[in-house]
Amino acid sequence: MVRTLMSKDEKKRSPLLPGIEGPRDVQRLEPDELQALAAELRETIIGQVSGGGGHLAPSLGVVELTLALFRAFDFERDKIVWDVGHQAYAHKLLTGRYSEFDTLRKKDGISGFPRMAESPYDHFGVGHSSTSISAALGMAMARDLKGEKHEVVSVIGDGSMTAGLAYEGLNQAGGMGRKMIVVLNDNEMSISKNVGALSSFLSRKLSAPLLQRLKGEVENWVRGVPKLGEELAMYVKRSGDSLKTFFTPGMLFEAFQFTYVGPINGHDVGEMVKVFEQIKKIDKPVLVHVLTKKGKGYEPAENNPTYFHGVGRFEPETGLARKFTGAGLPSYTEIFGSTLCKLAEKDRKIMAITAAMPEGTGTDCFRSNYPERFVDVGICEQHAVTFAAGLATQGYRPAVAIYSTFLQRSYDQVVHDVCLQNLDVKFFIDRGGLVGEDGATHHGAFDMSYLRHIPNLVLMAPKDEAELARMMTTAFALHGPVAVRYPRGTGVGADVDENPKPIEVGTGEMVHEGKDVLIVSVGSRVYPAKEASMELEEEGIDAAVFNARFIKPLPQKQLLELAENYDRILVVEENAMAGGFGSAVLELLVDSEKLNGTTVKRIGIPDEFVEHGTQKELRSMLGIDKDGIKNAIRELVS
Amino acid sequence: MVRTLMSKDEKKRSPLLPGIEGPRDVQRLEPDELQALAAELRETIIGQVSGGGGHLAPSLGVVELTLALFRAFDFERDKIVWDVGHQAYAHKLLTGRYSEFDTLRKKDGISGFPRMAESPYDHFGVGHSSTSISAALGMAMARDLKGEKHEVVSVIGDGSMTAGLAYEGLNQAGGMGRKMIVVLNDNEMSISKNVGALSSFLSRKLSAPLLQRLKGEVENWVRGVPKLGEELAMYVKRSGDSLKTFFTPGMLFEAFQFTYVGPINGHDVGEMVKVFEQIKKIDKPVLVHVLTKKGKGYEPAENNPTYFHGVGRFEPETGLARKFTGAGLPSYTEIFGSTLCKLAEKDRKIMAITAAMPEGTGTDCFRSNYPERFVDVGICEQHAVTFAAGLATQGYRPAVAIYSTFLQRSYDQVVHDVCLQNLDVKFFIDRGGLVGEDGATHHGAFDMSYLRHIPNLVLMAPKDEAELARMMTTAFALHGPVAVRYPRGTGVGADVDENPKPIEVGTGEMVHEGKDVLIVSVGSRVYPAKEASMELEEEGIDAAVFNARFIKPLPQKQLLELAENYDRILVVEENAMAGGFGSAVLELLVDSEKLNGTTVKRIGIPDEFVEHGTQKELRSMLGIDKDGIKNAIRELVS
Repeated sequence: MVRTLMSKDEKKRSPLLPGIEGPRDVQRLEPDELQALAAELRETIIGQVSGGGGHLAPSLGVVELTLALFRAFDFERDKIVWDVGHQAYAHKLLTGRYSEFDTLRKKDGISGFPRMAESPYDHFGVGHSSTSISAALGMAMARDLKGEKHEVVSVIGDGSMTAGLAYEGLNQAGGMGRKMIVVLNDNEMSISKNVGALSSFLSRKLSAPLLQRLKGEVENWVRGVPKLGEELAMYVKRSGDSLKTFFTPGMLFEAFQFTYVGPINGHDVGEMVKVFEQIKKIDKPVLVHVLTKKGKGYEPAENNPTYFHGVGRFEPETGLARKFTGAGLPSYTEIFGSTLCKLAEKDRKIMAITAAMPEGTGTDCFRSNYPERFVDVGICEQHAVTFAAGLATQGYRPAVAIYSTFLQRSYDQVVHDVCLQNLDVKFFIDRGGLVGEDGATHHGAFDMSYLRHIPNLVLMAPKDEAELARMMTTAFALHGPVAVRYPRGTGVGADVDENPKPIEVGTGEMVHEGKDVLIVSVGSRVYPAKEASMELEEEGIDAAVFNARFIKPLPQKQLLELAENYDRILVVEENAMAGGFGSAVLELLVDSEKLNGTTVKRIGIPDEFVEHGTQKELRSMLGIDKDGIKNAIRELVS
Repeated sequence: MVRTLMSKDEKKRSPLLPGIEGPRDVQRLEPDELQALAAELRETIIGQVSGGGGHLAPSLGVVELTLALFRAFDFERDKIVWDVGHQAYAHKLLTGRYSEFDTLRKKDGISGFPRMAESPYDHFGVGHSSTSISAALGMAMARDLKGEKHEVVSVIGDGSMTAGLAYEGLNQAGGMGRKMIVVLNDNEMSISKNVGALSSFLSRKLSAPLLQRLKGEVENWVRGVPKLGEELAMYVKRSGDSLKTFFTPGMLFEAFQFTYVGPINGHDVGEMVKVFEQIKKIDKPVLVHVLTKKGKGYEPAENNPTYFHGVGRFEPETGLARKFTGAGLPSYTEIFGSTLCKLAEKDRKIMAITAAMPEGTGTDCFRSNYPERFVDVGICEQHAVTFAAGLATQGYRPAVAIYSTFLQRSYDQVVHDVCLQNLDVKFFIDRGGLVGEDGATHHGAFDMSYLRHIPNLVLMAPKDEAELARMMTTAFALHGPVAVRYPRGTGVGADVDENPKPIEVGTGEMVHEGKDVLIVSVGSRVYPAKEASMELEEEGIDAAVFNARFIKPLPQKQLLELAENYDRILVVEENAMAGGFGSAVLELLVDSEKLNGTTVKRIGIPDEFVEHGTQKELRSMLGIDKDGIKNAIRELVS
């Protein structure tokens, strides 16, 4: 049995969740039914995620908070923005998506994140962190301009608070003074353990010097109290921890001109509803500080919230990962992590930087081996890059490991702080290409397009694990900015050399000979291209496959020579075709006047946002898997 | 005479500045020489900027601060990062660049911003705001890893503090606890007047509710003091403004685990040196709050610091702008501003959003006409875009006006918050292409490349003022994300229609007929292409010019037809050629198999960072002015 908090008595009731089709159904429930509903939500979420993967711990942590919000607010008119959105499964279940919840994160099923197109109750689409205050402020201003009266609520985790965008929103919201409610969902975690100065402030673990200073200030102030001053000052001097409770996290938010309320228990629906009802009366920005436990109600997730943040299939009874076919191969992430450790052993200037994802990016082993050279900056990709630039000015060689989709946040810092100054920063971009179930907000569909026009940058993508290791060696053999982009998931099982050799910049390799037609590919699409060409041999089509390895600079000499020898070329990439790898190949061929007489076809990600599904399904849908490549070649030669 | 603070006595001395070749020369001066040096710095800066334009008010405001830093620190070993860098003229003059200061912002001369390649004393290159804390923290960590002992100083304006990147740096720096010094240069201004909650906190204009609440908390706390509690509580209740001084801006920074010092007078060198010497002893992050006056020492700039933030040539005696040839035409910025006002008169859902640049973006007239629909969010481009997305979900139609180079900061928000949700947000991107004297950090060289791969976005660039107005009408005739990109400076003097007609999406126009060769261009390069083609007629070359108008979607039908009729095509753009407009044209032609037999040449911004110079000089250097286009055509037809 699933280890939820559901008691036998609760089991006897007929289930409530199937009858909930919208917010008002939640409001109609008797107060004593809420606990049962909470248990049903947990059981449904655990059941679904254990079978299909997903964001478990964040969603379990806010079950009561979600219920309280649905009780105190009316989301038929009030607006809610869930920050990041990985905690919104209960919200989905309460807004008409119970019956299709088993399609969660599946192709043509419901998304793992709130999406405006999916439900009228998803008031803002999310996926990247820290957008909720800004978006909610926009809604609040719109409401005021229209003269409407509804509430606007943003629910944001303490982890998301480390991103600058959240601060920008808070500062602007406080300055504007419009009525809005920010619910700070404080679980003392981002994806991993929280970092940064404010996290300790929030949790009231005030630093000793801060406390000392505050005491000093109070002491000075009370000294001025007529008659009693000196006596009082002595009292303050002697007072110990009592002052800690005086200086609350509230002060910080009051500085942003928010009214601060809390902290309150985020697992007590009744208390939360009472507080929410009260603050609805306040006609200015309010921040409610709610304390929750990530993974709440499912012991394995409570004990290991980082693992269960976003998780694959697991046995609900034990929390242990389910074996699936193909398992056993290390992921690109793991190869990256172990190779970086090896490189860092020889080169003491190498550092590793992650933005709140040591486990996700595979830098956790670096953290263990070289803690002094490892930095988790928290969810702030902009700072990660500029901080790395600062390190590089002093001769250090930071490896900045950020997912493709999140590196979008630091585009300006890559351009302005790193590449413009030609600094020795290396970017390791995991989750390049289609990521699968996390869908449109998380695909790394654009990195080749948003990086390849930046001067000074070298950009590579490996065909397999061994090439990833070689490219990492290449990156550190070069001085200046280098980026390596690799896909989510496992590779093909290629053996990684003990001492991977660097690759000459701007050189590719033929991976399959053929004389009829040439496939030019890079990264994750090289093996499928090779397999396609091998299978096409049976059809009498003799397709060569060239692995470009470098998106920038392209293997110019080789490509131009090849263009002389083939009159039909297929370019295959797992990136937006607009401005991507194939686009670069076209630029090269046309600029060099090598295209005349040659037909070039391109396949890749078309000019649309790709929804969720397995990587396999999506690659098939877009025609960039082995079969798609075969079809494209057949068309090209016909 | 220049109205500096230099007295007659000071004039009698022989000048000090020519003898200053580096930081140690400043340290060798007698204390009583510093005032004279300050006056010389001001006179030199005003003299140079009045003749050649530049960032005047910021640099004048920090003359004493710069001197104090050079006295208290040794920048032969200590590191300094000037945030944004528009205030670093005194720094440049004190570090060996006095003799070439007359080349400031001129081609092949010194840059208007610190640049590592320019001087060993420019420890970090800057231009975009709010990078300094992150970069300085990187330097501090590098120092600690190496076991070195020098100081690291970041100088950041209160305006730059509104950007999330600064907050991310502060949070991380406080969390790390490394020794570093942040000098908060507080002039109560960003480029325009400051906005946001924190600006009033910094200036101690505590809001009444905040003060009320703080009083309440103190009251409750003192009530618990044995015996005296109630009496004390009464005292607190009665106390008025005295509490204000108790709650200082310091608390905010202490929350970030910085030691706060200040505020101190930023025009008193002696006081500042004393404070800096003291804080050098503190072995953790320190923030020194320095109060300065923007434009200090030059009356016109003190009175109008926004105008004199970045200014063209002016008469030093009066501060009045110098007339220059070509003046009289309105700038694109002005046309944008007035057209937006007109459109907003008819469509009450149109709003205007600027990130701290109402004057720079031309939205100041919108602010006057429609204050309730205008928002200046401060220096936070990320929030500007997500906030706009929030407004758009509620039916408003925000016009987000951000310079091309600064929109790089919101790349992820454009992708993830606006375009992915297909929201009705319009981007008006001023300073697209080469901006001239502000140089590499400020060119809008990449926008077509970083925008055109984003699904759902429509992207246009006007050939002249009239077309800008038509494109703005087009933008608001469409529902969904639209961007219009236009250059810095004046147009060609085209009359703007009273009621500009929308343009059919994805259609261009022939602007000059010709049968030998086709020039395809867009935006600022259309007129030079037309002029080139007219002049080439005299040489017997008959070049047609097609204005594409749309970068996305391209005028596909027209371009494909044209490709049938011309065997030589020149694509001209003022954007990075990698992934830019020409790249899009190649994609279209190759994908449609219309390229065979046709030679296509592209000219534009090559794959390198372009330094400063006038727009005319830079366009000539890159061969994208009229003469460059003529040469390219001559080559193409030969």
